[in-house]
Amino acid sequence: MTPQITFKPYELTLEVPPGENLLKAALEAGVHINASCGGSGVCGKCRILLEEGDLDCAVETLLSPEEWRLGYRQACQCHVRGDVVVRIPPESLLDRKTITRRRPQVALRPSPLDLAALKEEGLYNPAFQKKFLQLPPPSLIDNVCDLVRLETGLARQHGLDNLTLDFFLLQNLPQVMRQDNFRVTATLDFAQRRSRKPRLVHLEAKDTTTRHFALAVDIGTTTVWVQLLDLAKGEVIGVAADYNGQLSYGDDVITRIVYSQKGDGLRTLQQAVVITINNIIRGLLKRYRLEVGEISHLIVAGNTTMTHLFYGLDPKYIRLAPYTPTACHLPPVRARDLGLELPAHVFIYSVSSVSSYVGGDIVAGVLASGLYKEPKLTLFIDIGTNGEIVIGNQEWLACAACSAGPAFEGGGIRFGMRAAKGAIEEVRINPETCEPMLMTIDLAKPKGICGSGLINLLAALMESGIILPNGKLRDDLNTPRIREGENGREFVVAWGAETQGGEDITLSEVDIDNLMRAKGAMFAGYLTLLENVGLRLQDIEQVILAGAFGSFINLENAIAIGLMPDLPRECFQFVGNGSLQGATLLAFSRDLLEEEQRIAQMMTNFELSETPGFMDQYIAALFLPHTQAEYFPNVIGRFKGQ
Amino acid sequence: MTPQITFKPYELTLEVPPGENLLKAALEAGVHINASCGGSGVCGKCRILLEEGDLDCAVETLLSPEEWRLGYRQACQCHVRGDVVVRIPPESLLDRKTITRRRPQVALRPSPLDLAALKEEGLYNPAFQKKFLQLPPPSLIDNVCDLVRLETGLARQHGLDNLTLDFFLLQNLPQVMRQDNFRVTATLDFAQRRSRKPRLVHLEAKDTTTRHFALAVDIGTTTVWVQLLDLAKGEVIGVAADYNGQLSYGDDVITRIVYSQKGDGLRTLQQAVVITINNIIRGLLKRYRLEVGEISHLIVAGNTTMTHLFYGLDPKYIRLAPYTPTACHLPPVRARDLGLELPAHVFIYSVSSVSSYVGGDIVAGVLASGLYKEPKLTLFIDIGTNGEIVIGNQEWLACAACSAGPAFEGGGIRFGMRAAKGAIEEVRINPETCEPMLMTIDLAKPKGICGSGLINLLAALMESGIILPNGKLRDDLNTPRIREGENGREFVVAWGAETQGGEDITLSEVDIDNLMRAKGAMFAGYLTLLENVGLRLQDIEQVILAGAFGSFINLENAIAIGLMPDLPRECFQFVGNGSLQGATLLAFSRDLLEEEQRIAQMMTNFELSETPGFMDQYIAALFLPHTQAEYFPNVIGRFKGQ
Repeated sequence: MTPQITFKPYELTLEVPPGENLLKAALEAGVHINASCGGSGVCGKCRILLEEGDLDCAVETLLSPEEWRLGYRQACQCHVRGDVVVRIPPESLLDRKTITRRRPQVALRPSPLDLAALKEEGLYNPAFQKKFLQLPPPSLIDNVCDLVRLETGLARQHGLDNLTLDFFLLQNLPQVMRQDNFRVTATLDFAQRRSRKPRLVHLEAKDTTTRHFALAVDIGTTTVWVQLLDLAKGEVIGVAADYNGQLSYGDDVITRIVYSQKGDGLRTLQQAVVITINNIIRGLLKRYRLEVGEISHLIVAGNTTMTHLFYGLDPKYIRLAPYTPTACHLPPVRARDLGLELPAHVFIYSVSSVSSYVGGDIVAGVLASGLYKEPKLTLFIDIGTNGEIVIGNQEWLACAACSAGPAFEGGGIRFGMRAAKGAIEEVRINPETCEPMLMTIDLAKPKGICGSGLINLLAALMESGIILPNGKLRDDLNTPRIREGENGREFVVAWGAETQGGEDITLSEVDIDNLMRAKGAMFAGYLTLLENVGLRLQDIEQVILAGAFGSFINLENAIAIGLMPDLPRECFQFVGNGSLQGATLLAFSRDLLEEEQRIAQMMTNFELSETPGFMDQYIAALFLPHTQAEYFPNVIGRFKGQ
Repeated sequence: MTPQITFKPYELTLEVPPGENLLKAALEAGVHINASCGGSGVCGKCRILLEEGDLDCAVETLLSPEEWRLGYRQACQCHVRGDVVVRIPPESLLDRKTITRRRPQVALRPSPLDLAALKEEGLYNPAFQKKFLQLPPPSLIDNVCDLVRLETGLARQHGLDNLTLDFFLLQNLPQVMRQDNFRVTATLDFAQRRSRKPRLVHLEAKDTTTRHFALAVDIGTTTVWVQLLDLAKGEVIGVAADYNGQLSYGDDVITRIVYSQKGDGLRTLQQAVVITINNIIRGLLKRYRLEVGEISHLIVAGNTTMTHLFYGLDPKYIRLAPYTPTACHLPPVRARDLGLELPAHVFIYSVSSVSSYVGGDIVAGVLASGLYKEPKLTLFIDIGTNGEIVIGNQEWLACAACSAGPAFEGGGIRFGMRAAKGAIEEVRINPETCEPMLMTIDLAKPKGICGSGLINLLAALMESGIILPNGKLRDDLNTPRIREGENGREFVVAWGAETQGGEDITLSEVDIDNLMRAKGAMFAGYLTLLENVGLRLQDIEQVILAGAFGSFINLENAIAIGLMPDLPRECFQFVGNGSLQGATLLAFSRDLLEEEQRIAQMMTNFELSETPGFMDQYIAALFLPHTQAEYFPNVIGRFKGQ
């Protein structure tokens, strides 16, 4: 019997000699699996998912029991004895270094996260605080229980009384109190947003007040970011990121929701993101030499679906009209109850959502950008896997989600890809010869086109007159780069001889149509929201771009294609990852943590599909840059042939 | 191969891991085998009969070669390697039927548990309440999240706002809300004693307001009682009891604490009592045909050590001077977190303790008896494995624990036994012939003497002049019943020919000494507490006897031996199991649940061993009935030969 291996997602099946090493088989089949240690088992990058059959595996020290149970194996440690189906998860496909290595191309607006400013404003007051106590040891004339001794000490030495208590603290209370002769440090949670009583959550022997850390977590549909915070010093110590392990089950929130409704799907997705977060945290703790017990809490921000999946809440009705989430505001939850490898005293707070498609990531961005306290009328835009818009100022906030789709993350575009090594990012086109000048990430051979590259390519095609305002490629240019392809007419961006895959990299009219729909949905969103609050585009005094994507785009080109409004360039500000920054801010400021739910509730949500005028605006925006040229006075002149 | 054990006479078969300890397997199966040495092999009580198969046994020093040949083994020394059938011989069986079958011999004082009275007083207001809601289904113009829809409904339809929320409720919220078209029943917890905000704990589809139950649990050192309560009707539905599974690891709190300090001992004891409670609850639910999800909460009362062990808190310092418990007041804990087989929404509330040896069982008794609101000066006595005393009235309460030891439960007495079938309970002795007249429980052949039997026997021996006030047997009586035994002089209560074991049942001078110490400690306790608050015995206007034991004793005889004070008989009241009644009361009355901690704090604790005068009082009480005859004016005349 010759064993067969099927590699997913490639649907590639091949026969191998019995006992063949799986990594070697993949290599020989041309299936790429990240593996930087040469198959010695130490880098742990060649993880695959065993979906059918059995593999003969060595002891796997780099996989947790949970990962093992889910079917993860290290390809280099597996030998094939019978037929198997294995899936290469995206994290093994992708160059995850690019996540953190890229530097934004624009200057970021200083956010309220500037801790010095926070301290000046009197807002630097972490909700979790440590208090050192020296308690009198018990005697026969003072033998109250340990808990009352501790509570009395907190009342007398720190003026804290009427506390609530986390039960798990009691489990080693006698030992902790006696370890250093009743010198202890208590961690208190002042963030109980509804009850307002401090909660006694943790107790350590000795004076540990200088060692107090928290984690801010941004759960993106694609990427998970974790920032390590020093609450004793008031500093951000470090940051780490990884692809969301749920990527193996779908690229966007809709496919994830669909997956969650199948059998054990919700549990699988919940565990996948938990594994990702556990791995990032483990790495951060190791890198900065922290004990896990020194973490007091987590603040998590994510879109509504990501938040539901992380907490194990059913997202079913997020997808079905009338689009109701289970809950927009969640009570604090014990980290351990969700599967995080953290001690019992660690609780998770999350940033509130507004609606099914305006999530805690946007609320966190509104907090981080300071929009909610801006006197100026501001347009806040976050383009990621979806696009969300907030318009308002310190007095009112309106928001909406645009079903922009993942086009700007490369989704639905034949050669679209994430911003990783080999992605075409910069494009210029010679209008005479139609020859492009390309620059890729890490200057590698071209592999595809990332989101910011797509914007630049589209603008270059417009500027050189290769595409018409209706998105069609001109048919009167004498160039081999415009041709009839499998999916209709297309422009050849790079010839196969120069690309990583050996295949021509193209942009077809179908791709252009998808990009126009995406940018059109965003622009129609701006106008519809404004119309519904009785304002016009020119009333906007400030535009804030959030999201990693926002920091990488060429603003001029984004305006040129009609994705961004044609407002004075000095109005534009960039905040970077607003979700992560907002979460960090909440860890440093109890006042803001107590206010975030109010801010979320202040944001009036518009369901665009149900909002009068949206469909007309959308149709009108399916043009480059727009059917109504007056919206883009500074752009039109750039385009040849218009 | 997984070995199977069949336990006879139960015909219960289960699978166990190879090498499992037989005593542990029995414990987990809910099969009781007497074992008072904690599995160390020294008490020899856990004898079983091997009927089929082989057991891997350690050397058995406590079995004769004959017994070994017959198949007797010590369960704690056996490991299971293959299938076996073992029989629990009668001497190793606890007769659990007797626990609930015995009827008190005295009229119980009506307690405040009288629900009609509670309702009249306006105190009938269970802390957990169900509210039915008919919510408007969501639409595109009203698509708030499910949680906000629910919260809005509670505010509009029941005037409840500013709620806190149990996270686990969210896990099936969308399904529950849609199951009967947004007709739901919410369970609210109004008992958050410190925060005072109602907590939303559970949600069910449809109107389930008529189905709402709670459990009151009394965790005794020997016996666990569970009472099933109907909160919709305000009724006690049923009660069940079983021996505390921890009995396998020691008879009293001290041996349990010692066991908890060995290796995994604390966890073992925690699980043992949890298994007992799970079994009782399962039986009750089955008997009354309830779904486990219809239970909203548990109220638990127990002595301080039992409470610590149930919650998995370290009891180490309860035993060591200066006797500090970990905590006297515990926050609500999720039942599932302690291992109870109950849904996530079920929380446990426990009755607060006062000190290491005055626990929640006594506080519950004080609540159930109404002592804390009595205008009369009252002496409250609970004699169980230990003896606790409370003195006071509505204005003040003082309390103490007496190290009376388990003599009145048969501990430390050669032929002492628990109140089970064959226990000698009633005794009269013909002063001329020294011949006794005995009555046993269930009129079975005598097997031993239970606690109330010991009091009656001692009083009979005093009355007939067989023992002297100093506890010695007279040496001038011409009867074969007084003889020199292995442990000194003894009185033969029943000849071997008439007993179950075929052995003479005796009471020796050593036994009498133990009983005198026990009753002496109690009496010295009354006097010492009174002295310390500046009062005398004759100031007491009322005596309340709590505890199962209290309901079975012959009051006249208890006074005769000096265990109870010689006060007018109409002063005495009996409340039965005050701990269970107190727990029940708290489930029916939020006002009392909120007050119980205040009452516990109102009880001033005296450590008798540290209290001036106690030792002198103790020495003075080591006499029958007492060295100072003036304390027992109505008793002295009864005794022949004094």
